[in-house]
Amino acid sequence: MRVGLMGFGKTGRAVSSVLLESRRTGLQWVMRRSHALEHRSVPEFLGVESDEPGRIHSIGDISAQELLDRYPVDFIVDFSSENGIDYYEEEAGRRGVAVVSAVSAYSEDKLRQLRRLSERTRVLHSPNITLGVNFLIVAAKVLKNIAPHADIEIVEEHFKAKQEVSGTARVIAGNLNLPDDSIKTIRAGGIIGVHEILFGFPHQTVRLKHESIAREAFGTGILFAIDNMPREPNGLFTMEDLMRPYFRLNATEREFTDERKNPWWRIW
Amino acid sequence: MRVGLMGFGKTGRAVSSVLLESRRTGLQWVMRRSHALEHRSVPEFLGVESDEPGRIHSIGDISAQELLDRYPVDFIVDFSSENGIDYYEEEAGRRGVAVVSAVSAYSEDKLRQLRRLSERTRVLHSPNITLGVNFLIVAAKVLKNIAPHADIEIVEEHFKAKQEVSGTARVIAGNLNLPDDSIKTIRAGGIIGVHEILFGFPHQTVRLKHESIAREAFGTGILFAIDNMPREPNGLFTMEDLMRPYFRLNATEREFTDERKNPWWRIW
Amino acid sequence: MRVGLMGFGKTGRAVSSVLLESRRTGLQWVMRRSHALEHRSVPEFLGVESDEPGRIHSIGDISAQELLDRYPVDFIVDFSSENGIDYYEEEAGRRGVAVVSAVSAYSEDKLRQLRRLSERTRVLHSPNITLGVNFLIVAAKVLKNIAPHADIEIVEEHFKAKQEVSGTARVIAGNLNLPDDSIKTIRAGGIIGVHEILFGFPHQTVRLKHESIAREAFGTGILFAIDNMPREPNGLFTMEDLMRPYFRLNATEREFTDERKNPWWRIW
Amino acid sequence: MRVGLMGFGKTGRAVSSVLLESRRTGLQWVMRRSHALEHRSVPEFLGVESDEPGRIHSIGDISAQELLDRYPVDFIVDFSSENGIDYYEEEAGRRGVAVVSAVSAYSEDKLRQLRRLSERTRVLHSPNITLGVNFLIVAAKVLKNIAPHADIEIVEEHFKAKQEVSGTARVIAGNLNLPDDSIKTIRAGGIIGVHEILFGFPHQTVRLKHESIAREAFGTGILFAIDNMPREPNGLFTMEDLMRPYFRLNATEREFTDERKNPWWRIW
Repeated sequence: MRVGLMGFGKTGRAVSSVLLESRRTGLQWVMRRSHALEHRSVPEFLGVESDEPGRIHSIGDISAQELLDRYPVDFIVDFSSENGIDYYEEEAGRRGVAVVSAVSAYSEDKLRQLRRLSERTRVLHSPNITLGVNFLIVAAKVLKNIAPHADIEIVEEHFKAKQEVSGTARVIAGNLNLPDDSIKTIRAGGIIGVHEILFGFPHQTVRLKHESIAREAFGTGILFAIDNMPREPNGLFTMEDLMRPYFRLNATEREFTDERKNPWWRIW
Repeated sequence: MRVGLMGFGKTGRAVSSVLLESRRTGLQWVMRRSHALEHRSVPEFLGVESDEPGRIHSIGDISAQELLDRYPVDFIVDFSSENGIDYYEEEAGRRGVAVVSAVSAYSEDKLRQLRRLSERTRVLHSPNITLGVNFLIVAAKVLKNIAPHADIEIVEEHFKAKQEVSGTARVIAGNLNLPDDSIKTIRAGGIIGVHEILFGFPHQTVRLKHESIAREAFGTGILFAIDNMPREPNGLFTMEDLMRPYFRLNATEREFTDERKNPWWRIW
Repeated sequence: MRVGLMGFGKTGRAVSSVLLESRRTGLQWVMRRSHALEHRSVPEFLGVESDEPGRIHSIGDISAQELLDRYPVDFIVDFSSENGIDYYEEEAGRRGVAVVSAVSAYSEDKLRQLRRLSERTRVLHSPNITLGVNFLIVAAKVLKNIAPHADIEIVEEHFKAKQEVSGTARVIAGNLNLPDDSIKTIRAGGIIGVHEILFGFPHQTVRLKHESIAREAFGTGILFAIDNMPREPNGLFTMEDLMRPYFRLNATEREFTDERKNPWWRIW
Repeated sequence: MRVGLMGFGKTGRAVSSVLLESRRTGLQWVMRRSHALEHRSVPEFLGVESDEPGRIHSIGDISAQELLDRYPVDFIVDFSSENGIDYYEEEAGRRGVAVVSAVSAYSEDKLRQLRRLSERTRVLHSPNITLGVNFLIVAAKVLKNIAPHADIEIVEEHFKAKQEVSGTARVIAGNLNLPDDSIKTIRAGGIIGVHEILFGFPHQTVRLKHESIAREAFGTGILFAIDNMPREPNGLFTMEDLMRPYFRLNATEREFTDERKNPWWRIW
């Protein structure tokens, strides 16, 4: 799969290195707002051995039309900002290039733009695109479904300097119809990121917990998204949509789908 | 639902108290091997206010036929031993009384007997019938399905005096096709019971954890089993079979099934 | 050591059973406000085999003078309320009977009364007298001493019905000079009691965690207090005062004091 | 404090960056076996803004005598191997330069060499020099001292590729007189490093837990060691020796030593 990446901040760089190491994806280009590092080779800049062609471009420098003519891709992965879509909307729609957006928050306006694009191509949006967090959300919905009267609390731990409540914790709370004050916020030292969903029963407790080790976890999620994107010609999807089939356990030959059909994990 | 209970050890007593407190089940009798407490009223013995008729009987004292004639039940709940089935097999089969067995281990012979009975009535067998552990097992299968290459470790913690490896941990390992040495065993003080299934990814960790507070947790699982038993006339089921429908998230009107249809939790 | 116990609620009963099982303490009497169970034998009531004489008395029924004449004790253990001291102050002071009070909160007035008593005999007051919580508090003070700039957060988890913030968490916060909003409160299901003191450093995290399994933990703390009470003729002490000597690690023959000198743990 | 560093592997680099950022230490030089990066400026190589002079040298290139003549230091910090001491032993001894060695294991021979050096200057050796792990070890010794009959288990979690049992866990076990099979080893994904010392009591559990976030944690420990090194002219010390004074809580003006006296933490 040929991939182009929007955004080259800390997370964009971590995702780039995962895309470069994966044998199933080829990084064709990186697009960023800043002119810094322009035309540098991504593998060289990151110190990764790879013969993938990806170079760093800046938005003002080349139009999406020219970029996609010269370096065509199957997927645009967006870790920039809500304005990233302005750059690629027209060309992605016209060419049917699939979009995977991990932009953490869109305004109402921009969300409308994303939905419009999803009428012309496949678009996935996930504000926290790690595999683990998305699995936890779906699993927690199942457990709430099984035990609607359990007490649910969300605990999130992050580094001291993080000021606002974790957006991921808000997404979890929203998915479980919980008020925001069910989120308990711990801020201490350099904790990278912990999210726990606690289900309290009268005689037992269930804890579903995700611990981030490094930003590269977003790259794993991108690989999963690319490999599990629905075949439909267009539509707006969530990570939950892509995970749902894995939750439909088959009664007869139960679990463990044929690995050949799901090779996305081969490369994390 | 009218319920009869086989076994009145510590767990049997805890389950009795849950069945008595539940408005959806009526405890008709308790059957045990010992003659101790014979004919005592269960609610009175447990100090629970209840007008349910359940009294304690001993196996040598009354035949299953006479017992079920005088105190008919819809469910037999078995917390005794693998021999409990000898007492009720014939009558449960003849009358179509459903059986929920939480016996921790059956020999091959006895398992064949259980299967034979399941051709005449509905039988559920779960060696650890808590809601939490069974949910974790199914959720872990899903996550292994999503990420077959994740490293999985199982940690179980129990009180110092518990000598063997936790049977529940073995069931978890078996369900995930893991060797027994993936189970790490902690024995310390009076820990009631903790099971953690840890999924290690390169850049993130997912922990699915169950903590037991009291034996009454088995009662909650029994209530779930009674309310979710399939409608088929007969068959041998597991807790996973009963949980699977809750894992089939519906894309359109997604989660949160109609509470009226699943009132089992009303009473824990 | 001959012990008398004030209070016979749930915690008082749990503490009684620990005192009865300990070979180093003999329970001489239990004093309570209510007339229920009056004159019953404590071992018999609790179903514990013991030849200790302890019987249940009620405050209105017998004066402290008469009680201590008939059943003299070395220690009065107080799990009643702040008014318990009114019953025994005069006689404990006159006879030099040591007092171990686990009353969770005293008003200013009552605290003055306790201090007055401590001028005539040895008095220990600890609102959470478990060994684990008190160890954590002192250890946390040491770590704050070592690393005064670490970020400290306190997490406490209890059963859903517990409404107020954990008093133990407040004591921890007070000891560490932390504002009350550094306490994060989790309420879910039947959790008995968890307290975690989290120290966040830029590149590492230290977690000091206490999990309660049963109320009997207070009994262990009482045994420790009785065996480690200072030899002075009088004074007001805290559990920290009793633990401090164990924190003075000796450089030459370092740790592990002679067990014969510290036999309190022989019986938990 | 002027510091020279032996070793420039991953940990050596992380420690360098902490030493550079600290206003209390000046990095004078880095010494390594390899010729790679020779004469490069350390701040420049690490991308850290600093006017400290530290350059990278290689052992074959310059003698310890010449190095210390040109770039004198107060402390040599050793993250190389057990052979590092061969380079600096003579000169450190002669000049009284203090040594902080974090070499993970010394053979008997080399340990003798280290002891010999400690007769001429102050030497600290700690195989895991993080603040958190060393605090946990001392705190665990105190708790074992308080409660010698508690059940103790050690759990260590690391990334899948780490083959041997954690050396830190072995040090913990050794300090607590526990057999090696009390260490439970978890290997999964990319876990950086977790050590938990669990104390099981009949009615409560205490968990002392350390989580590594990044190798820079070793740098924090080095800063602590440099600031808390005893004033004696020579001797062989452990981190426990340096921490012990913080554990001697003073009864009257208790905790929180004067910050001016212990400014080591100012810079992490």
